[in-house]
Amino acid sequence: MSVLALAGGVGGAKLANGLAAILPPGDLTIAVNTGDDFTHLGLTICPDIDSVTYALAGRNDVQRGWGVADESWSFMDALRTLGGEDWFNLGDRDLATHVLRTNLLRTASLSAVTADLAARLGIQQAIVPMSDDPVRSIIVTDRGDLAFQDYFVRYQCSPRFHAIRFEGAEQARPAAAILAAFDDPSLEAVILCPSNPILSIAPILSVPGIRERIVARSIPCIALSPFIAGQAIKGPAAKIMAELGLPITPATIAQQYEGLIDGLVIDSADGDGLRDHGPAILATDILMRDPADQQRLAQQLLSFARRLRPTGS
Amino acid sequence: MSVLALAGGVGGAKLANGLAAILPPGDLTIAVNTGDDFTHLGLTICPDIDSVTYALAGRNDVQRGWGVADESWSFMDALRTLGGEDWFNLGDRDLATHVLRTNLLRTASLSAVTADLAARLGIQQAIVPMSDDPVRSIIVTDRGDLAFQDYFVRYQCSPRFHAIRFEGAEQARPAAAILAAFDDPSLEAVILCPSNPILSIAPILSVPGIRERIVARSIPCIALSPFIAGQAIKGPAAKIMAELGLPITPATIAQQYEGLIDGLVIDSADGDGLRDHGPAILATDILMRDPADQQRLAQQLLSFARRLRPTGS
Repeated sequence: MSVLALAGGVGGAKLANGLAAILPPGDLTIAVNTGDDFTHLGLTICPDIDSVTYALAGRNDVQRGWGVADESWSFMDALRTLGGEDWFNLGDRDLATHVLRTNLLRTASLSAVTADLAARLGIQQAIVPMSDDPVRSIIVTDRGDLAFQDYFVRYQCSPRFHAIRFEGAEQARPAAAILAAFDDPSLEAVILCPSNPILSIAPILSVPGIRERIVARSIPCIALSPFIAGQAIKGPAAKIMAELGLPITPATIAQQYEGLIDGLVIDSADGDGLRDHGPAILATDILMRDPADQQRLAQQLLSFARRLRPTGS
Repeated sequence: MSVLALAGGVGGAKLANGLAAILPPGDLTIAVNTGDDFTHLGLTICPDIDSVTYALAGRNDVQRGWGVADESWSFMDALRTLGGEDWFNLGDRDLATHVLRTNLLRTASLSAVTADLAARLGIQQAIVPMSDDPVRSIIVTDRGDLAFQDYFVRYQCSPRFHAIRFEGAEQARPAAAILAAFDDPSLEAVILCPSNPILSIAPILSVPGIRERIVARSIPCIALSPFIAGQAIKGPAAKIMAELGLPITPATIAQQYEGLIDGLVIDSADGDGLRDHGPAILATDILMRDPADQQRLAQQLLSFARRLRPTGS
């Protein structure tokens, strides 16, 4: 059963890791948000690609929730001494990824470099940037238009969120490996990982062709809610939804993905109030505390997808 | 008494630090070898500029003899995991300098960036690259022509040294601050620091105009021997001299700097056999174990220079 998963940050990385554990490596393609990517101190930084890569390599820091395990911070300390910009934390180990990537990007595409770095860490699954063309998420706030990392890290999401736009999206093409995944006759499900639908999944869907391909294929597309009992599992999703006047409920997720998804996996705490309209619902324990949770949820998701498969396909 | 010091690596940094301790900050210009500079993993690395800068900032590692004190090596560890080139050690703290410099060089000259980074560390003396134009030391060996860091670090100076050439030197101009130091009427001495005359001082002298300006000015030029009792104080100088058939003596230094220097400071252990011909000799304890040694030697050097000053100048 080949699967294409669309993933953003940490929630995406967790489910991707679960899918990677239960699928043959060649059967999983993970299309990752690059709207958060930016150039900092001359280095090309791809936070979501790194979250997925570190998770699949088993090198992610579980406690901190981002970056590499066993990290140290001497670089940042020296950078501060030199009066360098220190609002974005770069761990000493993490820096090896950024330096290598920036150097490799001089002569290769982001797809090729991402695949290369993943392979160096022993990852056999396909981790693919949503596009090799630059697409940059810009957050429209009460303090003006902010580059994603300015909004997310520098200002810690404190400006009021009005809207998001994706600079460069109109001219961007999906990465070749994503198109290849759509063209693969063995593709049986598209998964929207439990990442922030507005900040993490919407940028992927903004690349012309990706949404259209999901809709065009007669295979189920399933989303996972990033909400449990009126709260966001992680990150600023609850704050953003509140600022948009949207409730923190599965219905909001169903609305964000309207016309796109066939199934929605929600937490048991959120009941089954959507059963009568909209996507099919699977209610289960969606909190991924550890790899066992990730694998259980991935397994439930794939069974759910199989049940949703149109007859005869 | 304004002084222009030509400096290479660690020996140069030590004497420069001694001169910095006893001269008013505005009276010292340190022209530093950039023949060792190279691009590694996309980062611009200037080993000799950093040695001088770290020494004057009091941040150099005294035990190791290079790099920053209190260094850590997580970046190198992660780089090895990623299969990156690991023959050149980059400490986590040191990396902050390379990343900042590389980024600043996009919009500023090496002179400006070097001055900027030195100022950020509180250094008031002028640390100046020999040129803002790229000059690269190439070592001609029995294993072919090698880029300096390949010879020096990757192959640990093991290939047999035949000659050195300075790629780009013909088109290079001295950095503006070096020309300004020569033009300054208060300049009273040019010091060739106890750096390797072939690897560290010769590249500086290869920049058209620098040697000519030293010779043209009627102020003493004084060199310090990097040898004591038939041994090089540090580095591969003894091996190179042996491969060139040159004895490890003050006479060899005098010969390397023939036509250029008025005085040579040698170790007391090397006697005074040169007194009757060639440069004036000052024999003293030239080993710089600590800052007190550096300052004592700098003071003796300046007194020596004053004695050599042509009458009436």
